Amino acid sequence: MLSDIEIAQAAKTEPIAAVADKLGIPERDWIPYGRDKAKVDYSVLKQDPGHQAKLVLVTAINPTPAGEGKTTTTIGLADALRQCGSNAVVALREPSLGPVFGIKGGAAGGGYAQVVPMEDINLHFTGDFHAIGTANNLLAAMVDNHIKQGNELGLDPRRITWKRCVDMNDRQLRNVVDGLGGVADGMPRQDGFDITVASEVMAVLCLSSSIRDLKERLSRIVVGYTFDRKPVTAGDLHAQGAMAALLKDALMPNLVQTLEGTPAFVHGGPFANIAHGCNSVMATRMAMHYGDIALTEAGFGADLGAEKFLDITCRMGGFKPDAVVVVATVRALKYNGGVPKDQLGEENLDALAAGIPNLSRHVSNMTDVYGLPCVVAINRFPTDTEAELALVADTLKAQGVNVRLSEVWAKGGAGGKELAQEVLRLVDEPNHFDFCYATGTPVKSAIEAVAKRIYRADGVDFTPGATRQLAELEKNGFGSLPVCIAKTQYSFTDDQTKLGAPEHFRITVREVKVDAGAGFVVALTGAIMTMPGLPKRPAAEKIDVTDEGVILGLF
Amino acid sequence: MLSDIEIAQAAKTEPIAAVADKLGIPERDWIPYGRDKAKVDYSVLKQDPGHQAKLVLVTAINPTPAGEGKTTTTIGLADALRQCGSNAVVALREPSLGPVFGIKGGAAGGGYAQVVPMEDINLHFTGDFHAIGTANNLLAAMVDNHIKQGNELGLDPRRITWKRCVDMNDRQLRNVVDGLGGVADGMPRQDGFDITVASEVMAVLCLSSSIRDLKERLSRIVVGYTFDRKPVTAGDLHAQGAMAALLKDALMPNLVQTLEGTPAFVHGGPFANIAHGCNSVMATRMAMHYGDIALTEAGFGADLGAEKFLDITCRMGGFKPDAVVVVATVRALKYNGGVPKDQLGEENLDALAAGIPNLSRHVSNMTDVYGLPCVVAINRFPTDTEAELALVADTLKAQGVNVRLSEVWAKGGAGGKELAQEVLRLVDEPNHFDFCYATGTPVKSAIEAVAKRIYRADGVDFTPGATRQLAELEKNGFGSLPVCIAKTQYSFTDDQTKLGAPEHFRITVREVKVDAGAGFVVALTGAIMTMPGLPKRPAAEKIDVTDEGVILGLF
Repeated sequence: MLSDIEIAQAAKTEPIAAVADKLGIPERDWIPYGRDKAKVDYSVLKQDPGHQAKLVLVTAINPTPAGEGKTTTTIGLADALRQCGSNAVVALREPSLGPVFGIKGGAAGGGYAQVVPMEDINLHFTGDFHAIGTANNLLAAMVDNHIKQGNELGLDPRRITWKRCVDMNDRQLRNVVDGLGGVADGMPRQDGFDITVASEVMAVLCLSSSIRDLKERLSRIVVGYTFDRKPVTAGDLHAQGAMAALLKDALMPNLVQTLEGTPAFVHGGPFANIAHGCNSVMATRMAMHYGDIALTEAGFGADLGAEKFLDITCRMGGFKPDAVVVVATVRALKYNGGVPKDQLGEENLDALAAGIPNLSRHVSNMTDVYGLPCVVAINRFPTDTEAELALVADTLKAQGVNVRLSEVWAKGGAGGKELAQEVLRLVDEPNHFDFCYATGTPVKSAIEAVAKRIYRADGVDFTPGATRQLAELEKNGFGSLPVCIAKTQYSFTDDQTKLGAPEHFRITVREVKVDAGAGFVVALTGAIMTMPGLPKRPAAEKIDVTDEGVILGLF
Repeated sequence: MLSDIEIAQAAKTEPIAAVADKLGIPERDWIPYGRDKAKVDYSVLKQDPGHQAKLVLVTAINPTPAGEGKTTTTIGLADALRQCGSNAVVALREPSLGPVFGIKGGAAGGGYAQVVPMEDINLHFTGDFHAIGTANNLLAAMVDNHIKQGNELGLDPRRITWKRCVDMNDRQLRNVVDGLGGVADGMPRQDGFDITVASEVMAVLCLSSSIRDLKERLSRIVVGYTFDRKPVTAGDLHAQGAMAALLKDALMPNLVQTLEGTPAFVHGGPFANIAHGCNSVMATRMAMHYGDIALTEAGFGADLGAEKFLDITCRMGGFKPDAVVVVATVRALKYNGGVPKDQLGEENLDALAAGIPNLSRHVSNMTDVYGLPCVVAINRFPTDTEAELALVADTLKAQGVNVRLSEVWAKGGAGGKELAQEVLRLVDEPNHFDFCYATGTPVKSAIEAVAKRIYRADGVDFTPGATRQLAELEKNGFGSLPVCIAKTQYSFTDDQTKLGAPEHFRITVREVKVDAGAGFVVALTGAIMTMPGLPKRPAAEKIDVTDEGVILGLF
């Protein structure tokens, strides 16, 4: 069996000029990055007559630690839609270098459903994440320099909330004391680094609709508080212009293609826990501008990614989705049914049946809470047995749930034709899309709405600290922003060991903070990690490049 | 008077495809980065018959803090040579973001002698520095992860020499304690960050001649020592493959053009104090491959930059320069004659005369120590008076020193024709090039040779610490590598207040360390800063980008 990188490197793809031409993008509107990648100028969207295209969201059930193939399914579904004669265009997130060198490997799809050049997309791509990290770290340097140079704004070094970042799994940087050395070297303070995808700059970039919007959002970023607890912003430090200059090119969506030549905009990639976890608004708008049907994905399970896509991205981007695909695997259903992760390759019909309520709850959230037509895609793995696949299909059909088998990993677009036909039917079905909570809802009520309606919790408890932070937020004018709930991706609850479809539980919010540039309030539940670590044997040890420049060992 | 960025943005330049075509590079050998930048595949050098082209080094006298216009002169001289009918090609260093956001502004030449697109070159360019920083930080993460995951190699956390880096002036990161938080977060230890240009990975990239050479050099990098003081390398951690994969594209020289369309390879940019301070060997080889005359520059004054170019780069790259241009300004001569930097705009013939011995000593080093034909280029500033220019010219001519006025900042290539004609004469003159010390000279003797022959010191004192380190170096097999001396750029001595041409002084070496990947031993004198800080009003505060994506405020 060929590895992902072997399949990708053997693929015969068209020059990016041909892909741009296929979409009707004139040469003046795209910029080459090599001969197989391009950036598309956002000024094309100024002439956009509005979103005529259909928009389909791909999401998933609560995953195993290995993920369930949302990206693979999104890519393969787009290829299948093209095979069915649709002008389908994909909008995806860019991979982070952290997982590439850690455990997970690449994030550009898999098998015969990939976007290419996968090596470039998984490594530096067009430099967007580097630009985001640099803008983030310029702001950090300006914060500490302000304190060192006299601190006119009265920033309290104990109340700096802005962290530096690197695009790397580097746990050594989670908690540091910096500014050591003496008077010439800064002000000693407690500090820490996040991985770049966790930076608010990433979320800002993904939600911005123009350079002007970008600068306004950047200037609103809160970097810390004064000794008398007033927020200090990037605008107060005059940092937004230089940050925007660094981000000017990164704001343009990247155009690549799938193995079958389907155009794909791969752009942005914020964390799906502390941020909203979707590709950029600009990329989705571009996919809708140039395609008749645009496919996009949201990180982790539908309780995190889809909720944020629907309640944050759609609200800010003005999107109204036409259908939802919920990806499930036999493996993840068994995991939700209680099977340990090292036994997921073995047939287990009882555990499978026990895991299905997790899937059913996600489907019901999509159809009943958000009012969207929905289909389940079972992403077939080589270890799935016929009996397992039949059990899933029969159980869902008995519940009245739409379900299709997807074999795009093994077969490319040809393995997703049935799913594609069902999606084409669904996007013309009646659609009663509504947010989970109305725009302008007070933060506390919005959190409760998501917890009760999506997670199915009995209620929400706020720690005394979180209650105090909520009061400060309201005082500073951030009391009715949309909420971005940071929660484990493994459970509907805030406890990652409670799999399946738990009932009779409460959610505890331990911290509330504002991402004023992104325009949402982050509510943290449980222990959220904003800087991962490398495993005992990092994937980096196996990655290599030949004398001829061919990358090996990415998967 | 137009600013540099206004001149650059008003320039009508050719598409990079036309520049590549001018050099005869077939389309398969270059990769577009936008329509005005490209990378050229190093495989073209495999067919290189050897260096037929002439090679000219541009260096300078000891500078003022603002610099003396070496890059501007190099660019303008190349334009002038083209106007004289030569096929001149330039090889320059890439700018670092640190100075761009700090005090100095851009580093892509100035006035009518610039390389373009100057905004891109000064910001992310083609991502080389980001790749270098990421490779550096991947190695750092793997070092700390190794300790955290059981420390099989027995790395002593107190003896880790490998630092993380950011391409930013960020003094807050000079000295940190990281790995705090608890058992899950790493091993607490003293640590620090360098600016990316100070990373050994930068030096390695600039000295590598192929991917194989790059990987071998990376694997030799010493990251620290074991509890029993044995060196541990990047190769021991299996990091060189992934690092090389990150650097694969960065290893390809970047092709841009001057305002007059002269092809320019802008590639690499290591610190000229702790590293060798020259553009990549690959870029210089490419300029010589495609041009009849190649111009390159070396950082700071000739005591630092030229010495390292001649003794390190030429030794490792197999180059034999044909002539040297020593750039001087009336301002820098007055500075060396004792005028404070805020009075350099006023005529002062006495101070000017007092500063000329600094210039004469550099010229004598080039001609008498290295045996190279040499010309002084006086880079004219608007504040220079006719009396000052006449005094410099007359004094040098009386000493038998070649001198020409350069007005390329104000006039482009047309302002450098006399200089160009003299350079064309010099490259055919007899040439007795030799290194300052022979290959294989023991480190201590090599340091003494540079100190006595180039700086004109009476001798070198080694602190007890440096003496111990020298002994360890020899024990580990690094005792006869070339030396890279870190010293202030303002003086021939290791004391930045001793300007002009000081005599009767000794150099103190306080630390000696090996950069085994780069292949040299660094000898540190005085206080060398590997992480700059931002000034009270950072240049970043003035940088902006318009709604249409036009960068403002870079200079």
